[in-house]
Amino acid sequence: MDSSLTSVVVNLDHARYEIIIGDEELNRIESHLQGALSNRHLIVISDSNVAPIYLEPVQARLNQVASNVDTLVIPAGEASKSVEEANRLWQALVELSADRSSVIVALGGGVVGDLAGFLAATYMRGIDFIQIPTSLLAQVDSSVGGKTGINLPHGKNLVGSFLQPKLVVVSTSTLATLDQANFRAGMAEVIKYGSIMDADFFQWLEDNVTSINNRDSVTLAEMIATCCRCKAQVVEQDEKETSGRRAILNYGHTFGHAIESVFGYGSYLHGEAIAIGMTCAAKMGLQLGMVDEAFVKRQTQLLKAFDLPTDCPTEKHNELLASMKKDKKSSAGKVKLILPNRIGHVELVPWPGDDAVLAALV
Amino acid sequence: MDSSLTSVVVNLDHARYEIIIGDEELNRIESHLQGALSNRHLIVISDSNVAPIYLEPVQARLNQVASNVDTLVIPAGEASKSVEEANRLWQALVELSADRSSVIVALGGGVVGDLAGFLAATYMRGIDFIQIPTSLLAQVDSSVGGKTGINLPHGKNLVGSFLQPKLVVVSTSTLATLDQANFRAGMAEVIKYGSIMDADFFQWLEDNVTSINNRDSVTLAEMIATCCRCKAQVVEQDEKETSGRRAILNYGHTFGHAIESVFGYGSYLHGEAIAIGMTCAAKMGLQLGMVDEAFVKRQTQLLKAFDLPTDCPTEKHNELLASMKKDKKSSAGKVKLILPNRIGHVELVPWPGDDAVLAALV
Repeated sequence: MDSSLTSVVVNLDHARYEIIIGDEELNRIESHLQGALSNRHLIVISDSNVAPIYLEPVQARLNQVASNVDTLVIPAGEASKSVEEANRLWQALVELSADRSSVIVALGGGVVGDLAGFLAATYMRGIDFIQIPTSLLAQVDSSVGGKTGINLPHGKNLVGSFLQPKLVVVSTSTLATLDQANFRAGMAEVIKYGSIMDADFFQWLEDNVTSINNRDSVTLAEMIATCCRCKAQVVEQDEKETSGRRAILNYGHTFGHAIESVFGYGSYLHGEAIAIGMTCAAKMGLQLGMVDEAFVKRQTQLLKAFDLPTDCPTEKHNELLASMKKDKKSSAGKVKLILPNRIGHVELVPWPGDDAVLAALV
Repeated sequence: MDSSLTSVVVNLDHARYEIIIGDEELNRIESHLQGALSNRHLIVISDSNVAPIYLEPVQARLNQVASNVDTLVIPAGEASKSVEEANRLWQALVELSADRSSVIVALGGGVVGDLAGFLAATYMRGIDFIQIPTSLLAQVDSSVGGKTGINLPHGKNLVGSFLQPKLVVVSTSTLATLDQANFRAGMAEVIKYGSIMDADFFQWLEDNVTSINNRDSVTLAEMIATCCRCKAQVVEQDEKETSGRRAILNYGHTFGHAIESVFGYGSYLHGEAIAIGMTCAAKMGLQLGMVDEAFVKRQTQLLKAFDLPTDCPTEKHNELLASMKKDKKSSAGKVKLILPNRIGHVELVPWPGDDAVLAALV
């Protein structure tokens, strides 16, 4: 393997796949589709932001190793993760003569990956799936672990499936064209890994703020590989979020999803909402005596170092509360919160009461 | 266990579940939801034909062992297996506060089971699922084996998932109220098991035509149990239709699905289309020298003994051909046919050419 490449392997009972991380993988994407993934009918799904930059060259390269390569483009943005868009694409797949041996390739950020994955999980009861994440958020989080999904008017990811990809290829070169808002949104999920499970990585992030913000490709590749290793470890322990272990990845998400839902998808980027959510979770932990002021301050400072918001909106707190109580992580009507007890460690905590949660929204 | 009960166990790598077959199980349905299936939030999905007869008493009995029982009713008929109906029900589940610990219960025929199963497979990335099939078709075929799905305008079951139920309860008492057309449609799938894998059962069906047509409950229970054992055996060998073994269950279905699709869902009941499809497959086998005239005649006679159609429609043969070539069992553009070579045995055969297939449609 090329010395500039890092490979992270995800090992599950029924599946094993590789996450390949390098700086210029889009320029040699065809070299990664070997063996069972070659000579297949590929359908590359991308969005209206990513397609103009990457779709044509990627399609040309994939054509070298595929039997044929079709493309489908969706409007950029969370609104595409809808039943209506899924329905349009299911029908488009039939019209492209996609069959059980076809492979769906997601080329884009989290929205593309989540939707394309759901299509792969459900088209003809499941076909193979490859992720080529182009946003930082997708590279460190959504492309790894097999969660796919679409939104309902009632909330995000309420419909979906678990489907592990056959391969994930991360090309850090795509981060050069990523807008600043989406870059910093991705950093929220990066910092999350430090907060929930890797204190050394948290420290490393604090030490590398400048080179990360300068998008130094070597630093970014190291950062992404660490995140993928963290995620792979959690997914290996609890693929389908049944033991509780995987729930730690949702640190900040119960608060964050509520913010996205109440203020409308699009008012906040997912990562921005999660940054606020992590801050709320930290304040909740402080209230419950699980962490001290220093923890809240240190996490807040790191989020702010990447220009992420940390203040909860000052209005609609009752709506936020109601939305949190509908969270899909609830079980038998009980919502649990994922709260910190030190840098690198979180715990699942029973709902501490509506008033306590409202107090953490300030 | 009650002496009138039969239990068939389906043993898969990741799942094990029981099919309970008895004459009056609806009148003691609560007794089968023990252990992990008790004290749960149940959502019973039924249709406008079945709900007026069974929903209220079943809900009352389930209420004895559940934390609460909600109900959702869909219009009877294949048209309900649509993206639109799935979307309506996904949203209804949110509004009923269904969460990851809720259980969907399908009370009805194949349409209810396929749609309810798809909802269970995709709501919040998958929740538990129980089948209470009330039609003969669902009892012997669609409720066992984990296939779920909905239709697209382009064809049947093009969208779906594999999700094994946690429990299947068959009450032969429901067959007393099943209309004649749906009863005989179910018999097509029953005869299929004899044709594809059990010559003794084929003979047993020939010997028991009268008591089956009289709906003798002891005979029906024995018949259904044999079908479930056949299906369980195939599903255990090839759960997700990857090795080719499970494909034998689609005997008659490539022809049959084309008939349903070209002439419109509703022109033929599924079982009627399959009866014609099995006859076409037999004629195709005869053409290829795989079976003799006696085979075709014997299978045709058994189908006719249950008043099933065996003649292919005389028109739209080119449309049927085109529809068959889009069959979802095709792989890399190649459709295989499942053709008989003796009673109790079938083979997967490469597409024998358009002309040969057209000749089998006469």
